[in-house]
Amino acid sequence: MLSPDFTGEVICLREGPVSLESACDEALVAGPLLREVKVAEAEGYDAICIDCAADPIPRAIRELIHIPAISAGEAAITIALVLGDRFSVITVLDSTRRIIEGNIRKCSLTGRCASVRAVGIPVLALDDLDRATDAILKEAGSAVEKDGADVIVLGCTGMSSSMNRLRASLDVPVVDPAEAGIRVAESLARMRVSHSRKCYPATPSKEIKGAYLSSLGII
Amino acid sequence: MLSPDFTGEVICLREGPVSLESACDEALVAGPLLREVKVAEAEGYDAICIDCAADPIPRAIRELIHIPAISAGEAAITIALVLGDRFSVITVLDSTRRIIEGNIRKCSLTGRCASVRAVGIPVLALDDLDRATDAILKEAGSAVEKDGADVIVLGCTGMSSSMNRLRASLDVPVVDPAEAGIRVAESLARMRVSHSRKCYPATPSKEIKGAYLSSLGII
Amino acid sequence: MLSPDFTGEVICLREGPVSLESACDEALVAGPLLREVKVAEAEGYDAICIDCAADPIPRAIRELIHIPAISAGEAAITIALVLGDRFSVITVLDSTRRIIEGNIRKCSLTGRCASVRAVGIPVLALDDLDRATDAILKEAGSAVEKDGADVIVLGCTGMSSSMNRLRASLDVPVVDPAEAGIRVAESLARMRVSHSRKCYPATPSKEIKGAYLSSLGII
Amino acid sequence: MLSPDFTGEVICLREGPVSLESACDEALVAGPLLREVKVAEAEGYDAICIDCAADPIPRAIRELIHIPAISAGEAAITIALVLGDRFSVITVLDSTRRIIEGNIRKCSLTGRCASVRAVGIPVLALDDLDRATDAILKEAGSAVEKDGADVIVLGCTGMSSSMNRLRASLDVPVVDPAEAGIRVAESLARMRVSHSRKCYPATPSKEIKGAYLSSLGII
Amino acid sequence: MLSPDFTGEVICLREGPVSLESACDEALVAGPLLREVKVAEAEGYDAICIDCAADPIPRAIRELIHIPAISAGEAAITIALVLGDRFSVITVLDSTRRIIEGNIRKCSLTGRCASVRAVGIPVLALDDLDRATDAILKEAGSAVEKDGADVIVLGCTGMSSSMNRLRASLDVPVVDPAEAGIRVAESLARMRVSHSRKCYPATPSKEIKGAYLSSLGII
Amino acid sequence: MLSPDFTGEVICLREGPVSLESACDEALVAGPLLREVKVAEAEGYDAICIDCAADPIPRAIRELIHIPAISAGEAAITIALVLGDRFSVITVLDSTRRIIEGNIRKCSLTGRCASVRAVGIPVLALDDLDRATDAILKEAGSAVEKDGADVIVLGCTGMSSSMNRLRASLDVPVVDPAEAGIRVAESLARMRVSHSRKCYPATPSKEIKGAYLSSLGII
Repeated sequence: MLSPDFTGEVICLREGPVSLESACDEALVAGPLLREVKVAEAEGYDAICIDCAADPIPRAIRELIHIPAISAGEAAITIALVLGDRFSVITVLDSTRRIIEGNIRKCSLTGRCASVRAVGIPVLALDDLDRATDAILKEAGSAVEKDGADVIVLGCTGMSSSMNRLRASLDVPVVDPAEAGIRVAESLARMRVSHSRKCYPATPSKEIKGAYLSSLGII
Repeated sequence: MLSPDFTGEVICLREGPVSLESACDEALVAGPLLREVKVAEAEGYDAICIDCAADPIPRAIRELIHIPAISAGEAAITIALVLGDRFSVITVLDSTRRIIEGNIRKCSLTGRCASVRAVGIPVLALDDLDRATDAILKEAGSAVEKDGADVIVLGCTGMSSSMNRLRASLDVPVVDPAEAGIRVAESLARMRVSHSRKCYPATPSKEIKGAYLSSLGII
Repeated sequence: MLSPDFTGEVICLREGPVSLESACDEALVAGPLLREVKVAEAEGYDAICIDCAADPIPRAIRELIHIPAISAGEAAITIALVLGDRFSVITVLDSTRRIIEGNIRKCSLTGRCASVRAVGIPVLALDDLDRATDAILKEAGSAVEKDGADVIVLGCTGMSSSMNRLRASLDVPVVDPAEAGIRVAESLARMRVSHSRKCYPATPSKEIKGAYLSSLGII
Repeated sequence: MLSPDFTGEVICLREGPVSLESACDEALVAGPLLREVKVAEAEGYDAICIDCAADPIPRAIRELIHIPAISAGEAAITIALVLGDRFSVITVLDSTRRIIEGNIRKCSLTGRCASVRAVGIPVLALDDLDRATDAILKEAGSAVEKDGADVIVLGCTGMSSSMNRLRASLDVPVVDPAEAGIRVAESLARMRVSHSRKCYPATPSKEIKGAYLSSLGII
Repeated sequence: MLSPDFTGEVICLREGPVSLESACDEALVAGPLLREVKVAEAEGYDAICIDCAADPIPRAIRELIHIPAISAGEAAITIALVLGDRFSVITVLDSTRRIIEGNIRKCSLTGRCASVRAVGIPVLALDDLDRATDAILKEAGSAVEKDGADVIVLGCTGMSSSMNRLRASLDVPVVDPAEAGIRVAESLARMRVSHSRKCYPATPSKEIKGAYLSSLGII
Repeated sequence: MLSPDFTGEVICLREGPVSLESACDEALVAGPLLREVKVAEAEGYDAICIDCAADPIPRAIRELIHIPAISAGEAAITIALVLGDRFSVITVLDSTRRIIEGNIRKCSLTGRCASVRAVGIPVLALDDLDRATDAILKEAGSAVEKDGADVIVLGCTGMSSSMNRLRASLDVPVVDPAEAGIRVAESLARMRVSHSRKCYPATPSKEIKGAYLSSLGII
């Protein structure tokens, strides 16, 4: 999905939970994610896109690096803001739903959010595409009919395979976070603009106790 | 500033006030602007970017056409949202400042806006680049120091020529609305997504009285 | 409905769409409306009431003139604020509903609004009084029962003919925008107070291109 | 200040604190005020205006009677809402300021309020008109210059005598709560509309212990 | 329910309505309540808990005394804030519901409140424990299922007897205002911290007209 | 500071950064903190207090355990809510300030927060007590005078040693987060109430890659 004048690389974390569906998952993935982010910046990438709609540890990432970093969830919501008055997010589990609701409150975007709904299917079970798409369609329909959503945002980058059927079936625009993340990351790179160091002050360097944590080489 | 795989055209309105700095200007430009927007869609463009940071008549434009339409001001604010907690807009006149403040309220983004400040220089006088840039720097400095802005958004597309000096002088990111408008328009076109018809219902067709207004051929 | 010591005049626009139900309608009516407003001030009226609950171009009107100007929709909402905690607006079409929702957001009154509902009947079809009143009663009932409205505001000045039956049928107060507009306009005139020039700076005078637009003689 | 077709009566409370400047004052005046309100309704008045900008016990008053009741403070704020984006209230003491701030929060109008400022002069000392007006002008000036007020609302009905000098000296509109209360009360009476019984349910009748409280004859 | 190192006393008001269910009740109880509060401070208590979930006259109480004063309703809501994202209050009557909704708005906690629901049973009829508990369970269930409540707050201290069955029947935490009031009062006493005199300025001393009101000896 | 009928234990993390001042610190401490929290629950404690005013990973902690868990920062803010209309937090560094501002937004308590200010002294340098207390007093004074704070909340549990001088010097109440954390933890334990499982769904169990992360034994 990259534009013709961009090249990129997908980096899968080698450590941490196999999916991110809860705040505990986010806590456990924090160290490995920060390490990879720091490596990517050192390797000269122009921008980073975290391919997760739950937007893990965005402040820590931005404290750590200077190149622009965007997460799939916030990118998708950002795009949704220009498509209609109110969006709904359809995500996997209740635990994920609560994380996304908190992200939206933290971004002061509650007034634009019609609802966050969960389909009750874990990330790794989205492979059953028909079942997943049926469930997404059901919740998206309720979001539009009952909650007043003008736009649907998918709340898991594992849902991208459902996009074709969702677009064909829904009367409102649907935003794929995986694609939105790339679009916003590219836009920031093209504009040669990055996050505000004033907002994200560099973390003070300090002693890190413990062999594993200090071996991450983060701060 | 277009990406290599995109081509575009700049269309200047042949009727209306020579600059847009007030709600009266916005009211007067409405007819000619809607006519050009409708023509552009008919000519097959993939997306439209209104090159004005005061974001004139966004709802009317989206009622009228099916291709994605973005305005420079809302595009710049959208980009600013992912760069820091709070942005300030630096615009030309108090009359423009009030319009932009209203746009931000209407978009329920007040919680993200540190301030909107005016330099007191009309659009057509921005040609005096040194004076304009000095004035923008002064207000941007106050926005950062006094109002708590993390990001500066230029509130007039006529301010783009000041970008180089602003970037060199300010410690926070600066967003150029002219460039942001193109980036967001391209992103929407690439994602093949447009504004929600549910949010922007098509205007009912009806009799238009008056030779000029009916000659616009809008509805 | 004027008080005994007031006289007034109803001025119908000779140009523009025959009803105002969308943002496109509002855009098209802007020029003719501003011209009449300016004429009315020149003729010595003490106050102006725009007889439309969608509140077209309020900022442009107030930039242009010094006498107090009120629009029927905002007047009705203003009255509703002192009658209960939350009001609902019942208007004609979804396109109008969206405009009114935006007006309420722009006025930072979202916290007081239970809902805006549309009856799905165009302005010119309100002539079928029984059908119109039945539809208003149905939506007003839902607003009270489901949305928690304490007060009903009619969202179209063409609905005034339904007032008698609505009042007799509903247990909550109903506000007629046509009457509220006159009441607030009179109040402002009696108080010899007008809108804040600081909030509504005069539009800068400038060249207007195009024979029709410059013939309006607005700025 | 009544319109020519209205007559009214000013009723002074015979019991309670000699001025209302604190929540304790409001608590002490509650019984006598409710008694007079009930008497006034029984005597056939069309509307009641509580001549106090601190708006004492508005819910209790509306629970008790069926005719419209408005208080000077909320009436003045209501009028201010149609004159500019943001208003400031200038009141007597810090204790009164806190009451008014609470009233504004309770009415969900915080987004429209630039500030509430106190002149530090008790109600009964407003008789020193020059000193009072000087102090009001000073705080109103700060409200306009520093807080961003578009409109000034006087926060004490005892300040009406300063109106002429305030209007002559300030560039923004000034709203007198005593006059606003009458204007809104008249408007409600003319519109034959009263507060929502759904919002203000009648207080359940019950035993009142204590000779004085039961003698008030309120519930 | 007091901690082992605390002793306390329950003081019943000898004057006023026999239950507090409306703003009129609150107005009538104001004088006797303030008198007892002042007496309690004079007797050397370390803190005061007003045993009512409608939180009568909190500002007047805090203006009057220096020791910490907490009311059962606000204490319960305070505890609820750390147990989940959104709470619902289940109270007795619609008149009480409206008071509590106003308290929540005044405390700027609307964003945390899922709903306030009334069981339609007056305080003195809560003695029919089975009926009361059934009704509370029904509304609490709706609050959790329909309104999205994470935590239930009882909105009347007379509902404490239902706590055992409520806890056994509901899957979300339930907060008893009577107990919460004691917990918060004790916490404030242990921390040797009281309400801000800056926020609650002492009420100015002044003449009180009327034999009863002046005999209360409040200000 | 524990009540006489409570016993407790202070557990220092053996791994992680030596102080928590940034989102990176929070990310690095997440694993060790979750491990200790889980151990503490297994050991039979009635409640957990995280002794840090930056409130690290509150959702992850509550997903993981059933006993009540409170963090010092949110406990202090909770206590501050009942002491005045608006509080200010005085914390160590700008990086910490941004975390606390985000926590307040996430808790929808922005309307109660006057400001968050940083003294510019790292946690480990608070040992210089005079310098630290002077700096806290300076920022607290500005919070009260300029920002309108009614209550001061210390934004670092390392600031407790300054409490005596702060209380003696400031005219507004000061809340120590270390003490507030214990008070609220005890209160929850006494009330036998814990966080809502509905709000904090248990994290789904899953494969954790990496020797260190899986050795934590968290999920």
